[in-house]
Amino acid sequence: MNSQTALKSGTATVTEQEMANAIRALAMDAVQKANSGHPGMPMGMADVATVLFGRFVNFDPSAPHWPDRDRFVLSAGHGSMLLYSLLYLTGYPDMTIDQLKNFRQLGSRTAGHPEYGHAPGIETTTGPLGQGIANAVGMALAEHMLAARFGKDLVDHYTYVIAGDGCLMEGISHEIIDLAGHLKLDRLIVFWDNNSISIDGPTSLATSTNQPARFRAAGWDVQEVDGHDMGAVAAAIEHARGSDRPSLIACRTIIGKGAPHLQGSEKTHGAALGEAEVAATRENIGWPWPPFVVPDEILAAWRATAKRGAAARREWEARLAASPRREAFETAIASEIPAAVFDALDALRKEHVEKATKVATRKASELALEAINGATDLMVGGSADLTHSNLTITKGMNRLVAGDYSGDYVHFGVREHGMAAVMNGIALHGGFVPYGGTFLCFTDYARGAIRLSAVMGQRVIYVMTHDSIGLGEDGPTHQPIEHLAMLRATPHLNVLRPADIIETAECWELALKTTDRPSVLVLSRQNLPMLRQSYTPENLSARGAYILRDTEGPRAVTLIATGSEVEIAVAAAEKLKADHGVEAAVVSMPCWELFEAQDAAYRRSILGDAPRVAVEAAARHGWDRWIGENGAFVGMTGFGASAPAADLYRHFNITPEAVAAAALELID
Amino acid sequence: MNSQTALKSGTATVTEQEMANAIRALAMDAVQKANSGHPGMPMGMADVATVLFGRFVNFDPSAPHWPDRDRFVLSAGHGSMLLYSLLYLTGYPDMTIDQLKNFRQLGSRTAGHPEYGHAPGIETTTGPLGQGIANAVGMALAEHMLAARFGKDLVDHYTYVIAGDGCLMEGISHEIIDLAGHLKLDRLIVFWDNNSISIDGPTSLATSTNQPARFRAAGWDVQEVDGHDMGAVAAAIEHARGSDRPSLIACRTIIGKGAPHLQGSEKTHGAALGEAEVAATRENIGWPWPPFVVPDEILAAWRATAKRGAAARREWEARLAASPRREAFETAIASEIPAAVFDALDALRKEHVEKATKVATRKASELALEAINGATDLMVGGSADLTHSNLTITKGMNRLVAGDYSGDYVHFGVREHGMAAVMNGIALHGGFVPYGGTFLCFTDYARGAIRLSAVMGQRVIYVMTHDSIGLGEDGPTHQPIEHLAMLRATPHLNVLRPADIIETAECWELALKTTDRPSVLVLSRQNLPMLRQSYTPENLSARGAYILRDTEGPRAVTLIATGSEVEIAVAAAEKLKADHGVEAAVVSMPCWELFEAQDAAYRRSILGDAPRVAVEAAARHGWDRWIGENGAFVGMTGFGASAPAADLYRHFNITPEAVAAAALELID
Repeated sequence: MNSQTALKSGTATVTEQEMANAIRALAMDAVQKANSGHPGMPMGMADVATVLFGRFVNFDPSAPHWPDRDRFVLSAGHGSMLLYSLLYLTGYPDMTIDQLKNFRQLGSRTAGHPEYGHAPGIETTTGPLGQGIANAVGMALAEHMLAARFGKDLVDHYTYVIAGDGCLMEGISHEIIDLAGHLKLDRLIVFWDNNSISIDGPTSLATSTNQPARFRAAGWDVQEVDGHDMGAVAAAIEHARGSDRPSLIACRTIIGKGAPHLQGSEKTHGAALGEAEVAATRENIGWPWPPFVVPDEILAAWRATAKRGAAARREWEARLAASPRREAFETAIASEIPAAVFDALDALRKEHVEKATKVATRKASELALEAINGATDLMVGGSADLTHSNLTITKGMNRLVAGDYSGDYVHFGVREHGMAAVMNGIALHGGFVPYGGTFLCFTDYARGAIRLSAVMGQRVIYVMTHDSIGLGEDGPTHQPIEHLAMLRATPHLNVLRPADIIETAECWELALKTTDRPSVLVLSRQNLPMLRQSYTPENLSARGAYILRDTEGPRAVTLIATGSEVEIAVAAAEKLKADHGVEAAVVSMPCWELFEAQDAAYRRSILGDAPRVAVEAAARHGWDRWIGENGAFVGMTGFGASAPAADLYRHFNITPEAVAAAALELID
Repeated sequence: MNSQTALKSGTATVTEQEMANAIRALAMDAVQKANSGHPGMPMGMADVATVLFGRFVNFDPSAPHWPDRDRFVLSAGHGSMLLYSLLYLTGYPDMTIDQLKNFRQLGSRTAGHPEYGHAPGIETTTGPLGQGIANAVGMALAEHMLAARFGKDLVDHYTYVIAGDGCLMEGISHEIIDLAGHLKLDRLIVFWDNNSISIDGPTSLATSTNQPARFRAAGWDVQEVDGHDMGAVAAAIEHARGSDRPSLIACRTIIGKGAPHLQGSEKTHGAALGEAEVAATRENIGWPWPPFVVPDEILAAWRATAKRGAAARREWEARLAASPRREAFETAIASEIPAAVFDALDALRKEHVEKATKVATRKASELALEAINGATDLMVGGSADLTHSNLTITKGMNRLVAGDYSGDYVHFGVREHGMAAVMNGIALHGGFVPYGGTFLCFTDYARGAIRLSAVMGQRVIYVMTHDSIGLGEDGPTHQPIEHLAMLRATPHLNVLRPADIIETAECWELALKTTDRPSVLVLSRQNLPMLRQSYTPENLSARGAYILRDTEGPRAVTLIATGSEVEIAVAAAEKLKADHGVEAAVVSMPCWELFEAQDAAYRRSILGDAPRVAVEAAARHGWDRWIGENGAFVGMTGFGASAPAADLYRHFNITPEAVAAAALELID
């Protein structure tokens, strides 16, 4: 079937070209109405998208969350009208023509860039370039992993991506192309919208890379086609589906195709075409209908394409109903952490309170992970080449390798950004709870994707170790200073910095139970003593902050700390009492976000009325929230240095003596 | 000359192999003494480094800042002992044997990773992987640009890099490899330490990429050699120096070479070999001397290699002395901004106060740049494919293209991280003041390199536009929320968010005059009114915050704002006065860091004693510092949304009405 081939629909005969032109018209009209947006990409990729959705993608608008649907990711998210048009045309109930008319308006489902959660069929939030293709790698990996566990009769789908020049220029693309090739993710098919145009003008302003050669170097199957030759596109997809490697289909396209005076120009990229050019385009592509009107027979032809997926979905449901693995599969998809996990974490807390175990919180995290991974198969772990520093692998975990996806541990390589975005993709796909580690300082590299974990509200768990100058000799480039502030300032993200093994187990529990957002576990390299007096059934970290060490008499001062500095605060309190008879309470505050969420009375009861000193081996930024205008802060004022950890704490004056001195000054 | 060839030095005969073994011994001994560090890489690359420094690199330890020296960048910064050994052996006066003995100790020059500024010969701070090779691209570009301006008789040097597997896995490597190939930076020669080992184990755990093919796809000249065959390495360098493209020399090496039981294993990567293996290595490589002892004849042979560079330096100085361009060259290297630039900015302020110009601050920045670039040739600008959004190009600027480096504008492509790291390299090289733009939200992508601008104290200027929900329809993925907090929490970085065209000109002046750290200009997409009452000769932004609108009577409330929200604060103050007779002062606070640096009396005079309300279309995080415990904040509490900007300000309740209401509540 090529673009001239007719599809029978009702009484009329509709060509694929007409179907593609429906996308072009909707895209240019919506952008024109909003007077804002990106018509060029949807118009340029309309032909590819028509072939892809019309002939290949298995989806069912009436059951959009069907677990075995093909995934489609618009990595070039600025071309959002391509996706919205497809969702409308194929009949997703939530994507009405009114939504298209409200493109980029407050409260619409049709945001400027596709926003996960705004409408079914939007599989991930895209816009920041390179993220979508990286999410897709995670989805394709999750598909393989789930298929390895439940068999092809329950898990057998593709992940399709449309990526633009920008996606392929971003560094993250290198990280995940390399990983996808390495893991031979053969169900991943990426269309490159090779239109030779970016915002500044021709891509030749900034790049000369031979993309096909680059992808081949990473182990991909690469084809090059005319993106407006529907037959060629279809043949390429057929080939890609049969390949034993991930596929790139490089589609030569004309940006803004159909706009007679502007096509091929960067002027179609990010602005409305203008009324005159919109009219001229109607003429040029033979689309005489008014804005937002798609003739019934063309709409019917589009809606008919969804029947393929609906049938596939029904067949799949029959297979699932008959499967002995049905319950296990549904449990995996629901990804509800079993109670046994929390029982195991509780037992771990009991055991180590009694033992007063002194370990680094990264080691405590490993012990927590042993308990967790021993009680559920939902977890998939990994590290950006710091496995034995982050302590993210536990006994019995097996690494994922090309061709055998039964494993549950990913060696992500030195690819923090890719790791985070792949974890987003795994979480979005469903079936697993991903966690991955690097040094806290290298959240810098992963920022773009961590933010999207938060924007999308995905349960992705970051295991960030070596969390302060306490890492010692590696020096300032490896010592986080501003990173806690950066993460705490990020909305919809829980930052958990436990002080000892007990809080670490509690924080892991919180991370697992927090299903609507990502969590960052911030963990020490150095050993920390167990600080709790006794076992409590209650997870004391759950309220964000609590009084770890209360006073006997009235409080003279409150010392607030997190993580490795709680030990220092406790020592300072003891010193204040012993040397000066000053009553100091110690507040451990593992999670600002959870504390902020408590009611004012609880917060007041913890913070107290006495002067407050905070201690954290990091930037002060943000701490004034808790210490008040007359409080004191003991911490870092600049970058760190290279030396053994104990020397650094002394050098930077983050010591019990310094905290006690700051307290005495306040209460003088 | 191959490794068996003898070098005559004094009376003794020294082989290059012995010279290389001096590096191996110093590296393993220093790591052993510190019981911390990375011996594997220096031992594996000792042979390559010996050939490179012994035969090729032009440098002069007695004049380490000689502008036309070759640059050497150890991108695999964890192998710092390779660099420190080389600096000691070749005779840099500051790199004594005692420094090597104090490897990774407090106050030493020999930090865990090479720290720019710790000792001459450390051309950049490396450690975070991929940064060094990206800095080197900036240095190589600066070399070409300077040569285009001053000729080959004054500027004619190479940039050499040693990069590891980790550098080439990081996404940033893709961005800058692509750019270097595109710009045909033929003076850039990169050695890949291809030892097939990363921290987790063999690189085959995580990557299958054919690196030579990948570099060829990006337009590089690629050679593959045995990194322990000194003759082959030398021949490859000779070839690379003659190539018309950037060069990759892939060196097959054995990590930890020389350690009989551990070489080839990841165990040599990041830990001391242990006393027994150190002793066995001495035996194995025939190095009978005690720790930190290099026999005189071997040291003499090493020191002799520096004569080549010293001679070249003297010849160059003679050429410079005779050059009619001497003064211009020295001015460029000093990179002191001429007074004419500040006069032009002053004239701009005068003109626009009178005109009361209402423009977006990104547009104001363009006008400031017109003034600046019209008065100096020092600036080199660019954008990560958002030139006409960031407004970073000015009339008369020419783009840099392969083969013609007379231009001064870089189309960086969609590569924010690469852009920032390349700017670091340009600044480190000297001769130019780099600035580059993207959307503020995409500082996320550039974080790793922005942090290093700050760590290294480089005058790199970031032009970050579209700085809030004020960008409108592009939605939450493009709307910064936590980014101001992230940047403000970063040490040694000035974050400048001007409120109008006058403050924008002031902030540009501050960015140019701040030579010891980077500046981030945070600029609006949307138009903002001119807020100043009158022209002042003084740069009012220089103290970080000032009273923009004072009260007539005693202050009832202080409204503090930055950037686009200062307009809202002014409107709120007018409303409070008109509707409620409440006297509200408005403080504009374009730069927290500069305000923090003022004395307490000044800060108090600005903040006042009245209750305070801050307004900023961003996260609250950090604002408690200025509003105090009983203050109020009007801003964002979550991510943004897609809609026209005015709708968003209303939707998120960041309005004069909301600010006035918050003020009234405080003073009730």
